[in-house]
Amino acid sequence: MSQTVIQKFQGALTRAARARQNGHRAAVFWLTGLSGSGKSTIAHAVEKKLFDMGKHAFVFDGDNVRHGLCSDLSFSPEHRSENIRRIAETCKLFAESGTICLCAFISPMAADRQRVHAIVGEDFHEIHVSCPVEVCEERDVKGFYKLAREGKIKNYTGVSAPYEAPETPALRLSTAAEPLEQSVARTLEYILACIELAEP
Amino acid sequence: MSQTVIQKFQGALTRAARARQNGHRAAVFWLTGLSGSGKSTIAHAVEKKLFDMGKHAFVFDGDNVRHGLCSDLSFSPEHRSENIRRIAETCKLFAESGTICLCAFISPMAADRQRVHAIVGEDFHEIHVSCPVEVCEERDVKGFYKLAREGKIKNYTGVSAPYEAPETPALRLSTAAEPLEQSVARTLEYILACIELAEP
Repeated sequence: MSQTVIQKFQGALTRAARARQNGHRAAVFWLTGLSGSGKSTIAHAVEKKLFDMGKHAFVFDGDNVRHGLCSDLSFSPEHRSENIRRIAETCKLFAESGTICLCAFISPMAADRQRVHAIVGEDFHEIHVSCPVEVCEERDVKGFYKLAREGKIKNYTGVSAPYEAPETPALRLSTAAEPLEQSVARTLEYILACIELAEP
Repeated sequence: MSQTVIQKFQGALTRAARARQNGHRAAVFWLTGLSGSGKSTIAHAVEKKLFDMGKHAFVFDGDNVRHGLCSDLSFSPEHRSENIRRIAETCKLFAESGTICLCAFISPMAADRQRVHAIVGEDFHEIHVSCPVEVCEERDVKGFYKLAREGKIKNYTGVSAPYEAPETPALRLSTAAEPLEQSVARTLEYILACIELAEP
């Protein structure tokens, strides 16, 4: 096995080749918003629609990351940042492999989201899932707002910890003002425009 | 957005549905062996062949993991284990998304590979890329064996740190005894049998 052979095989597959084969480019769509704003719901609905169109997409959220890749991390500010960093690096690999990444994370700090942007590069798209905390709290899908108000959960985003809303997201959804179907349709439309192949 | 709607959307896409759409199942093929044994070369060659067959595969190796996801880790035994753990968790996500994972890591400790197996589950396949250290050292593609012999690199697997060869790998390649093409062909054949859909 000569070095020539090794170099011939190494890195032979480009992202462009994968995109041509898949019929779409890959990118990272980062949904940020309060707990209960609808991030995961929208991400999963969009994933299903992309799948039905024959496109490769995958949802990243607390459910599949916190129990595995980031199971060693707490919810301290340092560990939250490291959590976001690892997700960003993982999504970068997924995007290289040709998969559209739909990331649903509260990610309350603008600095952390900027770090994701720096890691992922130009394929990063920030989507703000905007919803007043009162509405999120009324939904309280997980029952965490109640516990946070009672002080049984500390540093809960929107209650006892800050949420820094994106100033200029690529897309802003208002899930208290528009029906779910509309948020999903707008997200899908935005994504389809982003992943379209440059040339036929 | 009612809780009913949320539950309806969550987790709607199963691995089986993705496999049907892709025309193949996903799994994790873990190539372990000394530096210079040919792991990365074989992995990239197999990836290209799978790609040419229209299948989704992705190579994980030091090049794309050590600079990103695991850039905060050193080469100490603890950090090597954490490095392997994160790769395993990442591959688990890739496999869930439908991608065939080709992992090329020295991963010298049997315990670390067993941990990968425990994380990934039944989709884990261990492939031993076997090659005598003398042959690897002669190749010395990266020039690291020379530095290790001179003591300029400490704890180098096969020189000054142990390599625990798998006792019962799913597949064993002998890259000093068989030509590269044969190792690639045998690996591909094994993988194709593993990822075949159970039903037409």
